[in-house]
Amino acid sequence: MLDIVIIGAGPAGMTSAIYGRRKGLSLAVISDSAGGQMRRSANIENYPGFDAITGSELADKMKEQLKHLDLEITTDRVNNVEKITGGFASKTEGGKRFESRSVIVAAGAHWRELEVQGEKEYLNKGISFCSTCDGPLYAGMDVAVVGGGNCAAESVIDLIRIANKVYMIVRHQLKADKMITDQIRSNPKVTVFENHTVSLINGKDFVESIEIKSKSGETKTLAVGGVFVEIGHDPNTTFIKNLVRINNHGEIIIDGLCNTNVPGIFACGDITDVPQKQAIVAAGEGAKAAMSAYTYLTRTKK
Amino acid sequence: MLDIVIIGAGPAGMTSAIYGRRKGLSLAVISDSAGGQMRRSANIENYPGFDAITGSELADKMKEQLKHLDLEITTDRVNNVEKITGGFASKTEGGKRFESRSVIVAAGAHWRELEVQGEKEYLNKGISFCSTCDGPLYAGMDVAVVGGGNCAAESVIDLIRIANKVYMIVRHQLKADKMITDQIRSNPKVTVFENHTVSLINGKDFVESIEIKSKSGETKTLAVGGVFVEIGHDPNTTFIKNLVRINNHGEIIIDGLCNTNVPGIFACGDITDVPQKQAIVAAGEGAKAAMSAYTYLTRTKK
Repeated sequence: MLDIVIIGAGPAGMTSAIYGRRKGLSLAVISDSAGGQMRRSANIENYPGFDAITGSELADKMKEQLKHLDLEITTDRVNNVEKITGGFASKTEGGKRFESRSVIVAAGAHWRELEVQGEKEYLNKGISFCSTCDGPLYAGMDVAVVGGGNCAAESVIDLIRIANKVYMIVRHQLKADKMITDQIRSNPKVTVFENHTVSLINGKDFVESIEIKSKSGETKTLAVGGVFVEIGHDPNTTFIKNLVRINNHGEIIIDGLCNTNVPGIFACGDITDVPQKQAIVAAGEGAKAAMSAYTYLTRTKK
Repeated sequence: MLDIVIIGAGPAGMTSAIYGRRKGLSLAVISDSAGGQMRRSANIENYPGFDAITGSELADKMKEQLKHLDLEITTDRVNNVEKITGGFASKTEGGKRFESRSVIVAAGAHWRELEVQGEKEYLNKGISFCSTCDGPLYAGMDVAVVGGGNCAAESVIDLIRIANKVYMIVRHQLKADKMITDQIRSNPKVTVFENHTVSLINGKDFVESIEIKSKSGETKTLAVGGVFVEIGHDPNTTFIKNLVRINNHGEIIIDGLCNTNVPGIFACGDITDVPQKQAIVAAGEGAKAAMSAYTYLTRTKK
């Protein structure tokens, strides 16, 4: 039986692996993508230590670091975890089965997409899923934020300080907290389109405009250089959600030490209820999870 | 009035600064050492993204990153923080006064030293304050761990997997949790010397032996290549401990989002009750603290 199975290999999972391995633990890292969501970032400028690096480059550096610790990522996808005597069994789509005394869940989340023409084509060319990460690239430009919840509203607030004009496209009604909604409604830089959806994204090399459509079917074209898609995210918890406690966003609930409600199961990164979905936060949480797992392993009987 | 004053410029404080600045906030970073405790590490091998880097190099990279965001660290030391109308006033030893709507406390901690001959001389040449960080460098060697609490005991457990022989030097009695104490006492690789202190550290280029002294005054020499000093740490909270809640280790108590008990004061890194004192954890917590401060600032009136 292994000491730890780590499910996921984004910055959270890979950091857990580095820490677990350096503690001399036996472990498997299972993921169908070394790097996770980080690979989708064209330019990371807020990971301390690197002025600017692409998500793929940073993922490759971490993957190399694992290799130097003699750790290979098992390319597969876990589709079930169950409790067994003395630990847990993780089963994969590829038909493998791993038994371990503890599990670190670091399977990440995926951002909901608009699913309109132009969205995939202009990813990182005007389409972004993170204003904290990419906002500064749009200084002085006109941009759109799509979504009506708190995350969307916070993106608008972010961009007010940075961009020239911010359009907010809300499917139904703006439903963020009152304090932040008031700021948005009263700011002359912002125009809110409620009861509108995005129907098309246009551009040449980069995004140049979007088409929006009202509930009654009228369309309008807005000239924008950037579109921030903030319509929520789905944590990748299908394989584990019957085992651990989940909040109403589908995120795994953890305490400050990455403990879930199940002794022996730890979680870190975007799959958890830590609201800051950032590579550096995920890496820090990954280290915590591995050290908490280590403490657990040294204090329970084999 | 500034948006944020950040006190401290280790990985926690510098990451807070990167995140705060990219959010367009006005801020001051005050510290007498850019890099903090990290500068004392000769070799960091567990910061994801860098296979191996010295603490000073990593600190310099982060400092450069701040410079590129037009952020200079104010070289000074805060010696008092008090509540004022609408925020806080931070006063420095140099006689400066900074007013800000929020404060991020990232002033770190310092590890207690043995204060015996040879300790300073052999820092990073056999003397370490962190088995998680440096343990793997001592593979197959004989080493000593000094201390009798849980941290010292966990270092011994770490080193059992790595080193050839582990001496544990305890001033009074081993007082770690029973489960871990039992493992230490029953492991043939470990010899525990209770009621002993280290009186001298000897070596040439690196540590070669230590002299230990019993309560009754007898001395003994142990040939070791490494000495792990695990006798506790003192968080640098003098200037703030009357304002925020502190635990019995002197650490600032935070929740999972780096909130202290005082609205508008956030804390991150080694000064907090997060037990994992690691650069990557501090950096992740620094990002969280800045984003929590940002949320606070956008939801309170100026």
